[in-house]
Amino acid sequence: MEGIAIMTSGGDAAGMNPAIKCAVDYARSKGLKPFLVYDGLRGLIDGKIVEAKREDVSGIMYRGGTVLRSSRSKRFFEYKYREQAYKHLQERNINKLIVIGGDGSFRALNDLYNDFKIPFAGIPATIDNDIAGTDYCLGVDTAMNVIREAVDSIRDTANSFNRGFVIETMGRHCGYLAMASALTSGAEICLVPEIEYDLDSIQERLRVEIEEGRNFLIAIVAEGCNMGDYLTRWINETLNMDARLTVLGHIQRGGSPTVRDRLMAYKFAVNAVDSLLDGGTNDIMVYKGGSFGGIPIHDVAGKKPKMDQTMLDLCTPLSR
Amino acid sequence: MEGIAIMTSGGDAAGMNPAIKCAVDYARSKGLKPFLVYDGLRGLIDGKIVEAKREDVSGIMYRGGTVLRSSRSKRFFEYKYREQAYKHLQERNINKLIVIGGDGSFRALNDLYNDFKIPFAGIPATIDNDIAGTDYCLGVDTAMNVIREAVDSIRDTANSFNRGFVIETMGRHCGYLAMASALTSGAEICLVPEIEYDLDSIQERLRVEIEEGRNFLIAIVAEGCNMGDYLTRWINETLNMDARLTVLGHIQRGGSPTVRDRLMAYKFAVNAVDSLLDGGTNDIMVYKGGSFGGIPIHDVAGKKPKMDQTMLDLCTPLSR
Amino acid sequence: MEGIAIMTSGGDAAGMNPAIKCAVDYARSKGLKPFLVYDGLRGLIDGKIVEAKREDVSGIMYRGGTVLRSSRSKRFFEYKYREQAYKHLQERNINKLIVIGGDGSFRALNDLYNDFKIPFAGIPATIDNDIAGTDYCLGVDTAMNVIREAVDSIRDTANSFNRGFVIETMGRHCGYLAMASALTSGAEICLVPEIEYDLDSIQERLRVEIEEGRNFLIAIVAEGCNMGDYLTRWINETLNMDARLTVLGHIQRGGSPTVRDRLMAYKFAVNAVDSLLDGGTNDIMVYKGGSFGGIPIHDVAGKKPKMDQTMLDLCTPLSR
Amino acid sequence: MEGIAIMTSGGDAAGMNPAIKCAVDYARSKGLKPFLVYDGLRGLIDGKIVEAKREDVSGIMYRGGTVLRSSRSKRFFEYKYREQAYKHLQERNINKLIVIGGDGSFRALNDLYNDFKIPFAGIPATIDNDIAGTDYCLGVDTAMNVIREAVDSIRDTANSFNRGFVIETMGRHCGYLAMASALTSGAEICLVPEIEYDLDSIQERLRVEIEEGRNFLIAIVAEGCNMGDYLTRWINETLNMDARLTVLGHIQRGGSPTVRDRLMAYKFAVNAVDSLLDGGTNDIMVYKGGSFGGIPIHDVAGKKPKMDQTMLDLCTPLSR
Repeated sequence: MEGIAIMTSGGDAAGMNPAIKCAVDYARSKGLKPFLVYDGLRGLIDGKIVEAKREDVSGIMYRGGTVLRSSRSKRFFEYKYREQAYKHLQERNINKLIVIGGDGSFRALNDLYNDFKIPFAGIPATIDNDIAGTDYCLGVDTAMNVIREAVDSIRDTANSFNRGFVIETMGRHCGYLAMASALTSGAEICLVPEIEYDLDSIQERLRVEIEEGRNFLIAIVAEGCNMGDYLTRWINETLNMDARLTVLGHIQRGGSPTVRDRLMAYKFAVNAVDSLLDGGTNDIMVYKGGSFGGIPIHDVAGKKPKMDQTMLDLCTPLSR
Repeated sequence: MEGIAIMTSGGDAAGMNPAIKCAVDYARSKGLKPFLVYDGLRGLIDGKIVEAKREDVSGIMYRGGTVLRSSRSKRFFEYKYREQAYKHLQERNINKLIVIGGDGSFRALNDLYNDFKIPFAGIPATIDNDIAGTDYCLGVDTAMNVIREAVDSIRDTANSFNRGFVIETMGRHCGYLAMASALTSGAEICLVPEIEYDLDSIQERLRVEIEEGRNFLIAIVAEGCNMGDYLTRWINETLNMDARLTVLGHIQRGGSPTVRDRLMAYKFAVNAVDSLLDGGTNDIMVYKGGSFGGIPIHDVAGKKPKMDQTMLDLCTPLSR
Repeated sequence: MEGIAIMTSGGDAAGMNPAIKCAVDYARSKGLKPFLVYDGLRGLIDGKIVEAKREDVSGIMYRGGTVLRSSRSKRFFEYKYREQAYKHLQERNINKLIVIGGDGSFRALNDLYNDFKIPFAGIPATIDNDIAGTDYCLGVDTAMNVIREAVDSIRDTANSFNRGFVIETMGRHCGYLAMASALTSGAEICLVPEIEYDLDSIQERLRVEIEEGRNFLIAIVAEGCNMGDYLTRWINETLNMDARLTVLGHIQRGGSPTVRDRLMAYKFAVNAVDSLLDGGTNDIMVYKGGSFGGIPIHDVAGKKPKMDQTMLDLCTPLSR
Repeated sequence: MEGIAIMTSGGDAAGMNPAIKCAVDYARSKGLKPFLVYDGLRGLIDGKIVEAKREDVSGIMYRGGTVLRSSRSKRFFEYKYREQAYKHLQERNINKLIVIGGDGSFRALNDLYNDFKIPFAGIPATIDNDIAGTDYCLGVDTAMNVIREAVDSIRDTANSFNRGFVIETMGRHCGYLAMASALTSGAEICLVPEIEYDLDSIQERLRVEIEEGRNFLIAIVAEGCNMGDYLTRWINETLNMDARLTVLGHIQRGGSPTVRDRLMAYKFAVNAVDSLLDGGTNDIMVYKGGSFGGIPIHDVAGKKPKMDQTMLDLCTPLSR
């Protein structure tokens, strides 16, 4: 029986576990023999590759992170280590790979493909939602809901105390999490790398509201702006409102995957297996315009993702 | 200034409050004067219509249900009561309406439009996800996540106790909630009105698994099947496994709206206001193929919704 | 090294897993060799007893139910099966037992003690909070918080819809869960077996409130009253308010244990190990008047628990 | 009718709203006329004191923070402002006060009592759990459960990524939150001001575990230790494990109050009203040894709280 290996790589994101489970189950239902690669690229090199048993993936659907663990690996850039990985796969009769992760992981697997013609399918998973070609990456919905609960909770304190709160979200250079959170939490200020902000204009807008009775405010700042500390001081000094900064940090990556992340994981995984069975060699699964499909890695890797224009339009007033 | 009234009608669903808030804010930003109709159609007849103040919609984003309350009204079927409603609107210079609710509510407002040419825009909101023409209705994501937490929690007990659990979800004649929940919770059985099920085949499948060590099982049943009690007895008697029924009931309607329901609410509301400003008279806002738009009420009202084919395909093995 | 075995028995409750983990860790730190009994009394008879490895209890702290699984067993009432259990223990050099469960489980272990002088310590765990001699049983806090979220969520719907909701909680013949939930959710009616209720008086009280504007109500009913259906009809007919019944069911048993259940589990487990090391033979661990201790099983088994008087006083107005 | 005023003061904590609601309801049931003071001491000086209407406290039970808002006030240290506050109370025939807050707030009200003989009762509320004489302060249970969810979620990432996580909890100079969280989350390291820690010893302990296969670790640090940054670097450098710091911040103060915080609020509030009716003049309500009572403010204000010895014993191994 032909083997297919499933692995996770790069930063962890909720939704990886459901994707693993679905890929294993669906691959088996299609007559393939599923294997699990532990510890990401490092495990691929070191041969931590075992046949998937039912109990390995039972009950993982509702756990955050990845039971396969992840890692970063410099060795994989060297041919000899990729060759070693290839041999581990060959020994087990594995000639298909599914990698759940981000841009960098896709490129690593593509190097392996170029060297040894091991076809792979990529499933986008990163809470940053910054992979080109897809509207959605696994982990984003769970991260947004973790942020929502944090902001809803901080709002209680802000309101109780006549205070400003600056909340910094993850997302590296991408402002998606910050924008979605600002809109859905009714924040008064939102600063993201994609929108030019104007503090003078914000000051003018909020000065009026404060005169009319506003007694607290919430600002959401993307980490890519690096404005958390500055904005907190600015609110204190310019708006004359006691302000505090909360950096949400790693709680955003974890938590039990939401239904959306589980459903998307299911569909990404089915598409990835089907893509490989249909002869796909190095495609990345994407969700675009409401439907799923695969696109060549060259349209993804190193490309700049396009931000949802409606979101930009709706958020712009919060940056002015 | 031209008035626009916002109301909720029919069964309540999470996401109604964010839609109210966004409609009010966005309408105001477009130069309209927003009004709130309390108590649904009944309030429209009785003139419970007040101008929206900032504090009426402040902080409602994160509350379940609808602060405008809802109701059903037989009187609205009579011309004289619709005329009364029309007069209340006219007195306040309101000539646009946004109604957040289901199929029946849209038809009621269409009667008002036919009589008095008050244009309206409908925003689909029902946890049943059974409105034709749209892939998504407000409240569905929140309901699915409430079910998820319930099922994840019951699974702990099922596993601890070598037991079968039958969980009945809402959804009237639509199996969407049950299917999505079965897939994302890794259920072993799923019965919905849309798929012909085969208990003999299920028995055969599970008998094998039980022999191989399966010690518990989860079955998700849509209320439209009316199979909760029967299936529970069937598991007891046929599979010889102690089984219990849990009818999830009204907890599925409530809870703080998820980010997805807030984001969808935002976009539905913006589209509804824009549709009316663009001269729309009786359109229903829909989310289809990944984008938003309005379609004539005749393509919605009384039409049968089409179920996602992938979902049907993925769920079919759970009915056999 | 002397062995100590840990088992769970009876109905499952959140807090069992933390108690298992703490008992294993603490026993080991005291120089004992911990064993795990799987499948409760049945497993004791059938010898499903294995030495506890670190990975068996790693990460179980935050999972509901019991990883050791539980069961009920009629065989244990027969001497020959207890003898069989005894032999399994003897073979492994186990001469101490910790059983996490309820009254019936304690009595079963006491029979074993009477026959073969295997000392045991009992840790009370049941969401019913109905074990005599202790103010607290593991699982109660988690169950109450599950109920809280359900009621808070249903309240949104009740309020949106001018409706009455009757919510039936677990607890068998004990009204603790219902009383605590009624008080902490601001319910208008509470019916429990411990308080004589007066529907006429309730009708009079609520009639006045409804005239003054009350538009919804929440009633919490203990399952031991068997009044769910009746009260729902009564609200419909007598108060003329549309009413619905929600039976919370098994979601109350599950969920990740709250901090209180984890802390109590920790302290119960430490006390149980210490009790056995101090020569205790058949004591039940209790939390009473703010401190922990062990009391002889004869003061627990078959005794009627005493309900917190303040709670009764505070709840009585909700039954009149 | 005699008036009683209820206010919140100092840092906010979950449980304040339930305490407000219960104090209002219970005071009314005892024939008193309840008033609400908005904005804490500042509102007392400025006369923001209004009679409590039913709708003011309806539905607040399940909201975090305090609907009465809070503040700090330097003016209250001056006699003339206290005199002004006194006059506001006198005008409204208010001669009893309930203050929900911390040590500093109790002392402020005691100054008012010394000057004008306005009796008051204090209800301890602070997530720091650092008020002398009471085992419990409102807000602690909710804060602990917020931390629990954060840590459980971060553990997923830690485990997925072979990483160390240092999590800093609130609590000022008190390590209660950190200790309870470390125990109940199964952390490997816990640093609090109350326990002398030994990094060399920790290093030795973990080095062995890492050799045996430990691939991640969780450290909980009380903010009072000011060790977050240092420990993170230390793990990186000394244990050679990639480590990250998460400062939980203000999410710990908020969130819907847990059942325990609601129940404790209920009982504290009943006791406060009863204490004033029984002639208490400046007592602080405490929960000690499992029961409620009032103690003179001199046994509370400025006194050092005593930490639970069992907790210290259980946590000590995590500091070595």
